[in-house]
Amino acid sequence: MTLLSEIFEQPTCLRRLLEKRVRVEAIAEAIRSKNIQYVFLAARGTSDNAGRYANYLWGAENGLPMALATPSLFTYYQKPPRLNGALVVGVSQSGKSPDIVSVLEEGRRQGCLTLAVTNAPDSPLAACADLVLDIDAGVEKAVAATKTYTAELLALGMISAALKNDEAMWQDLQNLPGWVEEVLKQDEAIARMAQRYRYMEQCVVLGRGYNYSTAFEWALKLKELTYLIAEPYSSADFQHGPIAMVVGGFPVLAVAARGKVFDSMLEMISRLRQVHHAELLVVSDDEHALGLAQSAIPLPSGIPEWLSPLVGIVPAQLFACHLTQAKGYDTDTPRTISKITETH
Amino acid sequence: MTLLSEIFEQPTCLRRLLEKRVRVEAIAEAIRSKNIQYVFLAARGTSDNAGRYANYLWGAENGLPMALATPSLFTYYQKPPRLNGALVVGVSQSGKSPDIVSVLEEGRRQGCLTLAVTNAPDSPLAACADLVLDIDAGVEKAVAATKTYTAELLALGMISAALKNDEAMWQDLQNLPGWVEEVLKQDEAIARMAQRYRYMEQCVVLGRGYNYSTAFEWALKLKELTYLIAEPYSSADFQHGPIAMVVGGFPVLAVAARGKVFDSMLEMISRLRQVHHAELLVVSDDEHALGLAQSAIPLPSGIPEWLSPLVGIVPAQLFACHLTQAKGYDTDTPRTISKITETH
Repeated sequence: MTLLSEIFEQPTCLRRLLEKRVRVEAIAEAIRSKNIQYVFLAARGTSDNAGRYANYLWGAENGLPMALATPSLFTYYQKPPRLNGALVVGVSQSGKSPDIVSVLEEGRRQGCLTLAVTNAPDSPLAACADLVLDIDAGVEKAVAATKTYTAELLALGMISAALKNDEAMWQDLQNLPGWVEEVLKQDEAIARMAQRYRYMEQCVVLGRGYNYSTAFEWALKLKELTYLIAEPYSSADFQHGPIAMVVGGFPVLAVAARGKVFDSMLEMISRLRQVHHAELLVVSDDEHALGLAQSAIPLPSGIPEWLSPLVGIVPAQLFACHLTQAKGYDTDTPRTISKITETH
Repeated sequence: MTLLSEIFEQPTCLRRLLEKRVRVEAIAEAIRSKNIQYVFLAARGTSDNAGRYANYLWGAENGLPMALATPSLFTYYQKPPRLNGALVVGVSQSGKSPDIVSVLEEGRRQGCLTLAVTNAPDSPLAACADLVLDIDAGVEKAVAATKTYTAELLALGMISAALKNDEAMWQDLQNLPGWVEEVLKQDEAIARMAQRYRYMEQCVVLGRGYNYSTAFEWALKLKELTYLIAEPYSSADFQHGPIAMVVGGFPVLAVAARGKVFDSMLEMISRLRQVHHAELLVVSDDEHALGLAQSAIPLPSGIPEWLSPLVGIVPAQLFACHLTQAKGYDTDTPRTISKITETH
């Protein structure tokens, strides 16, 4: 099974990318040499979820506000906004989505510094960027992206560490492949756990802060692979209306890693369990949070919050993969979608 | 029924707000007097959908890139990004959500120009803003916001017209209340149409460009009121994976107004009908798009694309209201949620 083997390739891919510290520091130096006021980031699908991660990480660690681009302003409307002061970033596995390429081309036309984060250094996206970071994850054959997602997160995390010139962050990064390996050891347990959800038709996926990205990416894998209706939310947005749809037994998947937003996630999980009698599947490094769940997936202890999305997505990938098998679907070539989606 | 009567109040509310042109022009003048490089906008729930509208409108018509704020960076993480060059905007019906207030307070602390768009000019949000635009929609009693949503969109649209000093846009705005009145005449037809969806449990809502906001707001009304799983997408993001979940008979709700993104929406709708055999409910001013749908809700002709979200959301509100009744739920006080959600 290609999907599962690509999930298992992740520690190797992450180690290979970690060796590019010198290259990433050169990129950071080029960024620091400009007077960047904010980041304008264009991405779609899985890469857009990597952008959601950078939105928090670069905001918190590097003080950089981030606008997530609306590519149709550049393509259909042909009314791109003024980008002076922006670092224009495109994130794309294939580097081929025409709308993402358009955003970088316009950024370059307006004289902005442009950066491509891609698995295809010879792609059209890379060709129109001043700076290219090749995530070097190897060919990804499964339609559902896994190893390129964690590699994109790592690339964005390394850029953050380099921009901040923060040795402690670089040290944390060295531990990442080992944590991912620890999670992969739970593969069989997660395969058994997935059986319970064989007939689940819809669910909600919650995460907050850095793990807002994890909620989106977990939901996307479920939609692509298992054809579930899986809707991602921050726990805050969920309270502003959508929580109304939770009835007894309604499945809620949650990523609750220790850190600044943990208490608010725990409060939401407790309320969902105790007041709404939801069914909970929780990925966490906290025993109390795990104890509230019908299905608990523990994370290794000691992961700093900013790296928790890179570890926390791995059990979610495994869960999506095994649920796909339990439902009798094809993990490598889901119906309807293709590897490269050429949106304009 | 409070909800229905508030939906019907909209032409009156819109006319009242349109009288504030002088006030809006003064706000625009204050914004123009600063060297604004981008907009940093904070909102939650329905108001966040109004922010999605401004993201397109202010980008296309005013050349302003927009970053949608991640409020938890200001509250839980206490690591707000550097906001120099930003116009910091808070949009909130009640003006009371502490996290949205935090973003404006930080903007002011950093010396940015701050703007509050709110239905509560004596609220904490208004108190910490340099500029306040009171949307003056009157007290909204139903928990699901309707008249304050269209009033927020209108406020953001008026600011766009004033910033651009575009008399043609102001002329278009004068026609808005009449178009909304025309749509309201379809109330009975929409009530009958809603019967067909009595047992619908999940759906997808599609929109693109300016009407990306409409897809999100329609889905939110359905979730709040009917407890449906209703997931919003741009047609572009939908292609990047989630389309895999569409099987024969799967209900897709779509807003397809004529304009720059219409052809791409029409292509998606055609494909969903002809290839995937989806069930389609389409809101459109185009006969071909309406002809593809099992349930068609026509919009008045002649609406410019940039105003189509203000008219197109009205049949969606009526549909959500009548479906709530068909399902036997309470339209005025949905379970679980409250009017003011105090997220941090």
